Amino acid sequence: MGTVKTKRMPRAVREQQMLDAAVRTFGQRGYMAASMDEIAELAGVSKPLVYLYLNSKEDLFAACIRREAGALTEAVRAGVDRELPADRQLWDGLRAFFTYTAEHPDGWSVLHIQARTHGERFASEVAAMREEIVAFVTQLIVAAARAAHRDPDLAEGEVAGLAEALVGAAESLAAWANATPGVTARQAAATLMNFSWAGLANLMEGRPWSAP
Amino acid sequence: MGTVKTKRMPRAVREQQMLDAAVRTFGQRGYMAASMDEIAELAGVSKPLVYLYLNSKEDLFAACIRREAGALTEAVRAGVDRELPADRQLWDGLRAFFTYTAEHPDGWSVLHIQARTHGERFASEVAAMREEIVAFVTQLIVAAARAAHRDPDLAEGEVAGLAEALVGAAESLAAWANATPGVTARQAAATLMNFSWAGLANLMEGRPWSAP
Repeated sequence: MGTVKTKRMPRAVREQQMLDAAVRTFGQRGYMAASMDEIAELAGVSKPLVYLYLNSKEDLFAACIRREAGALTEAVRAGVDRELPADRQLWDGLRAFFTYTAEHPDGWSVLHIQARTHGERFASEVAAMREEIVAFVTQLIVAAARAAHRDPDLAEGEVAGLAEALVGAAESLAAWANATPGVTARQAAATLMNFSWAGLANLMEGRPWSAP
Repeated sequence: MGTVKTKRMPRAVREQQMLDAAVRTFGQRGYMAASMDEIAELAGVSKPLVYLYLNSKEDLFAACIRREAGALTEAVRAGVDRELPADRQLWDGLRAFFTYTAEHPDGWSVLHIQARTHGERFASEVAAMREEIVAFVTQLIVAAARAAHRDPDLAEGEVAGLAEALVGAAESLAAWANATPGVTARQAAATLMNFSWAGLANLMEGRPWSAP
């Protein structure tokens, strides 16, 4: 790329190109093995420009985590229409989640593997996103339980546990789906729906499983 | 502790004491902040002896991961009687899992957080244990589906996905239960059973949830 084109492009656009290149490189090579040279080359800019804009490899990685976490959370929120029945909301939310992770395998690898494997600073960035998703799922379960049962016998602690279970199951399945040839986003969402919906519906209607 | 006592104790016993001290220190302080001085002092031995037996902080940490992973897997296997009905097996396995993680919060922190946060070498140690647990759960679901339905309509890929979902949900809940005051192992197991059993039972009996 020539200097003329470089000068014409606004900083925000160029930063996004750097982040695109960084997410791909971190996701495919891992944080340690990824080099700033490679990222700059893939973004079509000079290495000093990457340092000028993003400061350091650490800061660049943190910026990747923040951007990918924001995009994933936004994709799930946008996929769910809060006016629809609860099973439809859950199904839509799961499809949005698995579609995003399938279409952005490098971004998902950054969030699910790389961010948690390379120190507490990055792990806490991704923990904040996870809390936001757990809170969103918790609201969804509470609203659905209220709709199913005027006075649902679901304690707040129980709902928090269910939301943790659902998010943990979704994370685990997304990693498995991306590593397993032939598993589509729709199949992953259907597996989790099959797995969780009957139990959630029973709970919402006040019919828990009883311990032997 | 005096030199006399040191000399009398067999190496295997002393190594276990070092590992006990290391798991507690790594679990509570985190891998980076934990010091070999502190681990040696807590084990009641000299720091050179820790290096003599376990070689380095890295090797000591890897030995902790291996010991804790083996103990957790063994606790789950020992908790399940493969002759009992499927829901009982799942309930017993979940109780064994959550009892172990509740009683060994430092060991669980080493496996679930520390091992995944400090580099690929440790992450792959814990991934091996996870695969073993997923394989165990997969067998359990396949056997239960066969028992429920002579010719179950559950493809192998579907069962693998269900096992991933269950293991991911259990990991997530164990971390939440240990961080949430007042949540017992039995409650965590009941939450996950409530969440998953109705759906699993439907699947085993050939009655999947159908997409809208």
